[in-house]
Amino acid sequence: MAIMKGIEYRDASPAVRADYDDIMAVRKTDWINDFWKVLANDPVTLKRTWSSLKEVMAPSALDPLVKELLYIAVSITNNCEYCIISHAAAARAKGASDATLAEIIAVTAMANETNRLAIGYQIALDDRFLNPSR
Amino acid sequence: MAIMKGIEYRDASPAVRADYDDIMAVRKTDWINDFWKVLANDPVTLKRTWSSLKEVMAPSALDPLVKELLYIAVSITNNCEYCIISHAAAARAKGASDATLAEIIAVTAMANETNRLAIGYQIALDDRFLNPSR
Amino acid sequence: MAIMKGIEYRDASPAVRADYDDIMAVRKTDWINDFWKVLANDPVTLKRTWSSLKEVMAPSALDPLVKELLYIAVSITNNCEYCIISHAAAARAKGASDATLAEIIAVTAMANETNRLAIGYQIALDDRFLNPSR
Amino acid sequence: MAIMKGIEYRDASPAVRADYDDIMAVRKTDWINDFWKVLANDPVTLKRTWSSLKEVMAPSALDPLVKELLYIAVSITNNCEYCIISHAAAARAKGASDATLAEIIAVTAMANETNRLAIGYQIALDDRFLNPSR
Amino acid sequence: MAIMKGIEYRDASPAVRADYDDIMAVRKTDWINDFWKVLANDPVTLKRTWSSLKEVMAPSALDPLVKELLYIAVSITNNCEYCIISHAAAARAKGASDATLAEIIAVTAMANETNRLAIGYQIALDDRFLNPSR
Amino acid sequence: MAIMKGIEYRDASPAVRADYDDIMAVRKTDWINDFWKVLANDPVTLKRTWSSLKEVMAPSALDPLVKELLYIAVSITNNCEYCIISHAAAARAKGASDATLAEIIAVTAMANETNRLAIGYQIALDDRFLNPSR
Repeated sequence: MAIMKGIEYRDASPAVRADYDDIMAVRKTDWINDFWKVLANDPVTLKRTWSSLKEVMAPSALDPLVKELLYIAVSITNNCEYCIISHAAAARAKGASDATLAEIIAVTAMANETNRLAIGYQIALDDRFLNPSR
Repeated sequence: MAIMKGIEYRDASPAVRADYDDIMAVRKTDWINDFWKVLANDPVTLKRTWSSLKEVMAPSALDPLVKELLYIAVSITNNCEYCIISHAAAARAKGASDATLAEIIAVTAMANETNRLAIGYQIALDDRFLNPSR
Repeated sequence: MAIMKGIEYRDASPAVRADYDDIMAVRKTDWINDFWKVLANDPVTLKRTWSSLKEVMAPSALDPLVKELLYIAVSITNNCEYCIISHAAAARAKGASDATLAEIIAVTAMANETNRLAIGYQIALDDRFLNPSR
Repeated sequence: MAIMKGIEYRDASPAVRADYDDIMAVRKTDWINDFWKVLANDPVTLKRTWSSLKEVMAPSALDPLVKELLYIAVSITNNCEYCIISHAAAARAKGASDATLAEIIAVTAMANETNRLAIGYQIALDDRFLNPSR
Repeated sequence: MAIMKGIEYRDASPAVRADYDDIMAVRKTDWINDFWKVLANDPVTLKRTWSSLKEVMAPSALDPLVKELLYIAVSITNNCEYCIISHAAAARAKGASDATLAEIIAVTAMANETNRLAIGYQIALDDRFLNPSR
Repeated sequence: MAIMKGIEYRDASPAVRADYDDIMAVRKTDWINDFWKVLANDPVTLKRTWSSLKEVMAPSALDPLVKELLYIAVSITNNCEYCIISHAAAARAKGASDATLAEIIAVTAMANETNRLAIGYQIALDDRFLNPSR
């Protein structure tokens, strides 16, 4: 049950429409998903979030698909249903197969397990990590 | 303050030594970090965890470095210091630069932010995600 | 899918009814939401939780609305749907507008991001924080 | 780096001393750990937390040691160092061996893994769980 | 909305059927819940997860019911609906009453509270925990 | 153990110095804490994070102190030591007393408890929340 309703393109202010247009242009798509339409209730947050996301997810040393996979790993760890479903769709659009998604889920789950082994035993940092030059 | 002390190679049982030897062989290194030495207090968990991790992190469709990066993203989200430091070292050993690590941290942090925007507004799944064939 | 059904007023024991009556009196409302009706399966926990919550949320140095906002920030971070929806309703009843709710979501999301930047880089405490009198 | 200093018995108000005395009596011990001494900065929270904890951890259908183990599982999942160390000490005092602690850590870690497998795949509830009487 | 569909017994490969058969044999049941059927999309993860879980949950120093309770405590802390519902069903099958489930929920919730008190005040480890032999 | 060292003002590029100058000007202070100095290893993230934070924390409908308190509540829930200590210092600088900090910690801890009660029982949304106009 959403806290606020999304704002459709036809009802949006010119500033919000400009963000919607940019989202569709950058993503080479003809629709806006509800994440952005709901954020439009707070145009300052819409603009900041979109420009931040565009910057963070832009082509760089890391492959754009790898960034989607990182997003999915975080979203699984945080249990964000909307984020898992929408970024899995984005990953598929960038070429991820079922096998790739299954691998990410497996690595993410395993990392959550070994994180708790390290935390459970309260394992201290090895001297070699503290003094890598040795 | 560790819950239990690590078990050194010289004090380990033959079964634990076999796992230590395999860890060093697979990782092409001559030392064992404390994570494994502490797990050796519970040899069944040591063996299961190492064989699971070896399987999950093995060469596959995903690049081994990408798997390290996913591990770091999860470890940051869970705030596991030991895991962040040790996997950052592993990522560097596999070629990750400071710039790559900085990018992973930025993507991970941004995902944690947008996860909470989606959760905060309780955004419902778009029809297009629910019925992708349409 | 609830683990246990809520207990309606008409089916409640006198002790549970007394808690229900107090909840309605303190909150100046004529109904009990399911959180309390489900807790009534464990009357000791119902009584302890209500008396604790009443104490924590009572008028004090902090404005009651601010306490609701803190509750929402925590509930978003933990991804508790029921808690987000019910405390957003309570915040609205205490005067929070859509703009206020949007601001809380934005601050909460941003805090989740910068938390992971600090954790990702494993930033050490500044000397000035450790020795504030200097 | 603690946010506030603990309050020693000799410096405590009569009300706080009464809580300290009760903690030592219930726990059959002659010292107060810092958790309580720091909470004493907020005597209302000290009293509420102690009386709640005493109620929750009291002998009941569940064995007191099992309750300590549950506490450790939660504290590992949340990565609370103080809580892990102090409840591991309490569990040892109630008879837990290294083997028992190792088992709890293993179960906790495994649960964190399978939680993320269920979340990662967004597995829907089976009909048999939704309609258990069938 | 599941990321991938479960694989029914009739459509499964011989290797996956062998795991399904073992799950039903060990659990003394005649059906497979969706967790395993969805994991079967990745047969390596299915086999590893089942053999790990079988090992971790096997009879040992800890009572099998206690292990279910630990699982529930972790699943509540991580907010995994599927895991809470399925392990609550398993706990009931092993003899847990409503009162037992209510107790676990109460302990888990209380631990989440005191974890944040310890973290909020950043309480340092007591000397007696650091030097238990004194 | 930090992943990367902070960059001192004297060693910073003109662009980074401009951000440092703005941070000190907006905060009316003469020093830069390590959070920003470490972020300066990734100047794009430094600039984005600072401008985002400046926007989110700017005077608005919510009191600046309330925003600090929300930040602390999130940081406690996520167990970010650096964030708790630095925002507690910022809250004190904006007038928060020990009593205020104690209240925030108490509310945050209580919210973490009731979040898990709602999650543990898997309490469904009340009709009145789903249809607020009725």
